[in-house]
Amino acid sequence: MKILIKLAFVGTAYCGWQAQNNGNSIQQQVTYAAEALFGYRCDVTGCSRTDAGVHANCFCATIARHGAHGISTTIPLDRIPRAINRFLPEDIVVLSAYEVDDGFHPRYNAVSKEYIYKIYTRTERDPFLNERVLHLPHELDERRMNEAAGYYIGTHDFMSFMSSGSKISDTVRTVSVAEVTRDDFMLTFRVAADGFLYNMVRIMAGTLVLIGEKKAEPCEIEKIIADKKRSNAGITAPACGLYLNKVEYGIDQF
Amino acid sequence: MKILIKLAFVGTAYCGWQAQNNGNSIQQQVTYAAEALFGYRCDVTGCSRTDAGVHANCFCATIARHGAHGISTTIPLDRIPRAINRFLPEDIVVLSAYEVDDGFHPRYNAVSKEYIYKIYTRTERDPFLNERVLHLPHELDERRMNEAAGYYIGTHDFMSFMSSGSKISDTVRTVSVAEVTRDDFMLTFRVAADGFLYNMVRIMAGTLVLIGEKKAEPCEIEKIIADKKRSNAGITAPACGLYLNKVEYGIDQF
Repeated sequence: MKILIKLAFVGTAYCGWQAQNNGNSIQQQVTYAAEALFGYRCDVTGCSRTDAGVHANCFCATIARHGAHGISTTIPLDRIPRAINRFLPEDIVVLSAYEVDDGFHPRYNAVSKEYIYKIYTRTERDPFLNERVLHLPHELDERRMNEAAGYYIGTHDFMSFMSSGSKISDTVRTVSVAEVTRDDFMLTFRVAADGFLYNMVRIMAGTLVLIGEKKAEPCEIEKIIADKKRSNAGITAPACGLYLNKVEYGIDQF
Repeated sequence: MKILIKLAFVGTAYCGWQAQNNGNSIQQQVTYAAEALFGYRCDVTGCSRTDAGVHANCFCATIARHGAHGISTTIPLDRIPRAINRFLPEDIVVLSAYEVDDGFHPRYNAVSKEYIYKIYTRTERDPFLNERVLHLPHELDERRMNEAAGYYIGTHDFMSFMSSGSKISDTVRTVSVAEVTRDDFMLTFRVAADGFLYNMVRIMAGTLVLIGEKKAEPCEIEKIIADKKRSNAGITAPACGLYLNKVEYGIDQF
């Protein structure tokens, strides 16, 4: 048995999920905390890489003893979040813990992921939202953006929405949810899919901004997808507005 | 003419509004920014002192040239927020600016202030709310708390809700709004009055927590007020949950 944890984190201070030699990663912090709690070396595996500055309302990761398939502990499962949180910095919190089979992989077993991208449109910044939204100090037409988002839904080749550095060859993904809603000055783009290409949500968001600013028409999304050219889509919107919001495994318990 | 500005700030990094020799205050930051913008020494006067760590969704302050009654500038009023924000740190934002008479005082002219106090009750912390709420990882009965808050409404001697260090002699205040609402795990205590004693909202919040925890009955608020003894009320809830939310001057324009 392995332990699956659900985490929330403010990504601002980190180089992303993945452990790297040149930065402080969330994976490293969770690995240190797991080792401090269980008393032996642990392997911590995440549901996705996230970029520097990206946040998570719900990120999933497994913990196993290093060199072993599973983990053994006398700590009851429902005590693990609080116990591990004592060893984590303030901006990373384990919300819940579950038992999963040794063969479970938080990335490959995921059937769907949901991201949200937040854009704050008041003229002046909100100091409580620093590094937590994209601030655009002008009107965006969220109805146009929502109409445009509708074109993302379905099974498409999303090559136009992948950063050029990526080596992925299969760029077809199925988007099940894509919508833009407004709450006062805050616009939220919500998108769920069976998987995402590198920077896909941020490029989708950058493209929707063009449409909200009336620099492009909602229906142009169809052509941008069809053309399979990165340069036809909008800019890669900054990391600080992006949140991993949900990961689904098709399992009822979590 | 003086300039009245409305500000929002995250209070975490500051010793409070008031300039002090031993700490970094919001008043100092705004004074530096005003001097940088207008090019001469300025006096910045706030609508209230706030404690270290207290936040504001809306704080009011006036700016006048030092040694003069008013201010003269060629910058149009509607450009002032953005212009002054260039000189302010990220956690302080000027939202809007207005012209007021030289005799206007942001503290003495205020007819009503509204504070909110936020309590987050999920078992595990929310990393996005660090230093922005009081985290109590257990159930609080918000209906009891709201019933209790009703007893704060009206004109009462609030001596029991004043920290013992204060030298104020007139401790009668009129509370016009006092309510507790819940949004998922977040409880919000909202209170408006013609004025507040030192630490009054934080002691009110600390007392409501006792009632939410069923350690006291809602109707006991009446007796706590009548007894005029600080020791009968609850603890002073921590500063990080407190927000100055609104200041009213009985003037329509702002």
